[in-house]
Amino acid sequence: MLLFEKSEYRKRVENTKKSMVANGIELLIVSHPANMNYLTGYDGWSFYVHQCVLVSLDQEEPTWIGRGMDANGARITSYLAKENIYQYADDYVHSIICHPMDFVVDIIKAKGWQKKRIGVESDQFYFTHKSFQVLHKGLPEAIFVDANILVNWVRVIKSEAEIRFMKIAGKIAEKVMETAVKYIKVGARECDVAAQIVRAEYEGVGEYAGDYPAIVPLMMSGEAIKTPHLTWTEAVYQANEPVLLELCGTYRHYHCPIARTIFLGTQMPKKMKKVSQVVKDGLQTTLDSIKPGVSIESIEKIWRDYIARHGVEKKARLGYSIGVNYPPDWGEQTISVREGDKTIVQKNMTLHLIPGIWQEDVGYELDASIRVTDDGIEHLFDYPFDVD
Amino acid sequence: MLLFEKSEYRKRVENTKKSMVANGIELLIVSHPANMNYLTGYDGWSFYVHQCVLVSLDQEEPTWIGRGMDANGARITSYLAKENIYQYADDYVHSIICHPMDFVVDIIKAKGWQKKRIGVESDQFYFTHKSFQVLHKGLPEAIFVDANILVNWVRVIKSEAEIRFMKIAGKIAEKVMETAVKYIKVGARECDVAAQIVRAEYEGVGEYAGDYPAIVPLMMSGEAIKTPHLTWTEAVYQANEPVLLELCGTYRHYHCPIARTIFLGTQMPKKMKKVSQVVKDGLQTTLDSIKPGVSIESIEKIWRDYIARHGVEKKARLGYSIGVNYPPDWGEQTISVREGDKTIVQKNMTLHLIPGIWQEDVGYELDASIRVTDDGIEHLFDYPFDVD
Repeated sequence: MLLFEKSEYRKRVENTKKSMVANGIELLIVSHPANMNYLTGYDGWSFYVHQCVLVSLDQEEPTWIGRGMDANGARITSYLAKENIYQYADDYVHSIICHPMDFVVDIIKAKGWQKKRIGVESDQFYFTHKSFQVLHKGLPEAIFVDANILVNWVRVIKSEAEIRFMKIAGKIAEKVMETAVKYIKVGARECDVAAQIVRAEYEGVGEYAGDYPAIVPLMMSGEAIKTPHLTWTEAVYQANEPVLLELCGTYRHYHCPIARTIFLGTQMPKKMKKVSQVVKDGLQTTLDSIKPGVSIESIEKIWRDYIARHGVEKKARLGYSIGVNYPPDWGEQTISVREGDKTIVQKNMTLHLIPGIWQEDVGYELDASIRVTDDGIEHLFDYPFDVD
Repeated sequence: MLLFEKSEYRKRVENTKKSMVANGIELLIVSHPANMNYLTGYDGWSFYVHQCVLVSLDQEEPTWIGRGMDANGARITSYLAKENIYQYADDYVHSIICHPMDFVVDIIKAKGWQKKRIGVESDQFYFTHKSFQVLHKGLPEAIFVDANILVNWVRVIKSEAEIRFMKIAGKIAEKVMETAVKYIKVGARECDVAAQIVRAEYEGVGEYAGDYPAIVPLMMSGEAIKTPHLTWTEAVYQANEPVLLELCGTYRHYHCPIARTIFLGTQMPKKMKKVSQVVKDGLQTTLDSIKPGVSIESIEKIWRDYIARHGVEKKARLGYSIGVNYPPDWGEQTISVREGDKTIVQKNMTLHLIPGIWQEDVGYELDASIRVTDDGIEHLFDYPFDVD
C-alpha cells in the first residue's frame, strides 16, 4: 500500500536529519499526523490517541510508536521494518494512571537515547502539555529543544510525485466546485448541498479515490457571511443572498482547496459587486508577481497595496503553504503570506491564496491553489474566478 | 441560532464552577472544542487555531477568546453577551513572534485574574505544551492546576434536551448503516461507498440536518480487517470478504456511532462465524447487566468473562462515554469500560460499547450506543446485530 517509493521516504528522513543537525537535535519526537505520514507513510484515523514517530540520528529508519490496535495499520501502510514498530497496551489510553508517553520514555531508554538533545513539536495540537510533562519527568537527563515546525518546513518543497498527487487533488477540486454550483439554488437545504459536496470529495475523479479533507465543507450564507468557518444546517437558501464556499479536493491526504462565492440572484448588491471586482483583480495581480526568488511578504504587499488603492481592507493573512495534511487544518503552519514573512519563494512550493472578506455588510471568498514553477506559477485546479 | 435554552447553558456553567470549587480552581481555561461548545454554544471549524473559553468564579458568564475572523461566529452561535467575546489580531496565527496565549494572558491580567489558581486542560489535543509555556511565563503569580477532563466529566450526565439530540443522531445512524448495506457489494469501489455513507451522514433524516461526525467513516476489508481506523481507497470489494464498518449519525455535534460487519458471501469462515456469535451473545449479556448503581468495571467483567468462557479474547477497552464532540474523537475521555473504572452507572449516561475484534486471522465489529434509563438501558438506534 506504499504511495511513494521507499527512496522518497528515505530522502524525507534524510532531509529531516539534516535539519535536526542544523538545530542541534539528536532525537526528534514527531506527533503531527501529517509529519508522521510524510516520514513513514503511516495512515490511519488513530490520531485521537497519542502516537509518534521517533527520528534518531543513530538509526537509519524512524521508529513508530502507537496504540496496540493500530500497529497492524502501521505494518500495512508504512515502509518501516517490523522491528521499528512498537505498540503500547490499551491500558494507556485515556487513563489517569499511565500515559502513552510513559511507554515512549521506556522505548527511548531501551534505545539508549535518554541523554540526547530531544526535539518536540511544542505547538502542534497532537502534542499536549501533558505529553511534555511525562517525557520531562521520565527523561531527567535529556535536553529538550523546541522543534515545533521542523518537519513542516522539510515538507515545504514538494517532490514531483507529490505535485502529481496535488494535481489529482486539483481535478477533484474542480468536480467538487461543479457539484456545489449544481446543487446550490434557492429553496435547497444547506445540508443536502453539503451532502452532495462531500460525496464528490470522497468519490474523487476517474480512477482516483477522493480522500477526506482536513476541513469539512465550509459554507456560509445569510447572516453567516460575515464570518468564515461555519458549517451547514437545515436552513434553506434564499433568493438574492450570497453563498461563500470553502471546499477542497483531496487525494491521499494531499490537499487542493477551492473557494468561490455564489450569488443567488441577478442583482448583486453594489458593495459586493465592487468588493468582488477588487478582490478578483487584486488576486490576479498578486498571482502575476509570484516566481522563484521573490519574498513572500513582497507578494502580500502587492495584494495589500492593490486593494487599498481600491478601497478594500483585509487584515488577515492572504494565504499559506499547503500539501499533505490531516484534520483540523490543511495549512502547513510554515509560510504565511503576510507582512514579515521573509521566506524566499522557490520552485515547487505549493500555496493557497484565499482573499476572503468577511465583514458586517459584505462577504466574499475567492482563492487560488498554486504551484511555483521555474519562472512563475501553475494553477493546481482550473476553475474561473466567476461562478456562472 | 442557540440550540439549547440559555438556562441550560447557565446550568452547565454552574456545574462546572461547582467542580472547579471542589478542585480548588478559580479560573478555568477551556480549550477543547466540545467543552467550548457545551459551555457557550460556540460552534465553528476554527479549532485549527488557538482559542478558548475562560470560566471564572468571579464572573457569571464565560469569556470567549478567539481569532478575529471567528468573533462574529461566536456572536452568532453562542449565548454570550457581546462584551464577553474577545478577538485577537491575525498576526498571532501561526507566528513565531507572538502566540494567541499572549493575548489570553493580557485578558487575564486586564480582568485581575493573574494571581488565581488556574486550571488547564493539560492533555487535550487543542491545548499544546507551548500554550502552557506562554501562560506560565506570562502569569508568574498564578498557580496552575491540572483540570484535564473537568468539563468532560460535567458532560457525562446528559440533559433531556441532549438525549433528544442523541436520539435524532440515532435515527441518522440507522439511515447511514442502511445506506452502507445498500451500496457495499462485490465489485463496488470503497470510495464510492464512502461517498454514499457520508452523504447520508450529512443529509440527516427528515427535517433534521446531519452534522459532520468527529470521525470519518472507518471501513476495513481485505487485509485491513486486522486493524481498525483505516479509511477507503479505490479498491474494489471482493467476494467472500468481510467488511468492518464503524460509522456514525450526528446531530448538532451529538454523536450516535454505529458499527456492523458485512460478509460478502454465503460461506462465512468458521472462525469468523464462531467469533461473531460469541461477540453478539456477549454484548447482549453485557447490555442486560447495565443499570444505575452498578460499576463500569463490573459491566466489563461480565463481557470479559463471557467471551473468555467461549474462547475469545479482547484486550482493548469495551467502550466509552459519548455525546457532543468534534474531530478527532467522539469519545468523551471520561468513562472507559474496562477493569479499574469504578465509575457508578447513573441515569442519562450515554455509552458506546464497541466489541471490535481485529486479529491476524479474524476481524469483526459490532456495537451498541445506549442511554441509561431508570432501571436499565435504551438503545439510541434500532438496528439488528446481524446485517442481512
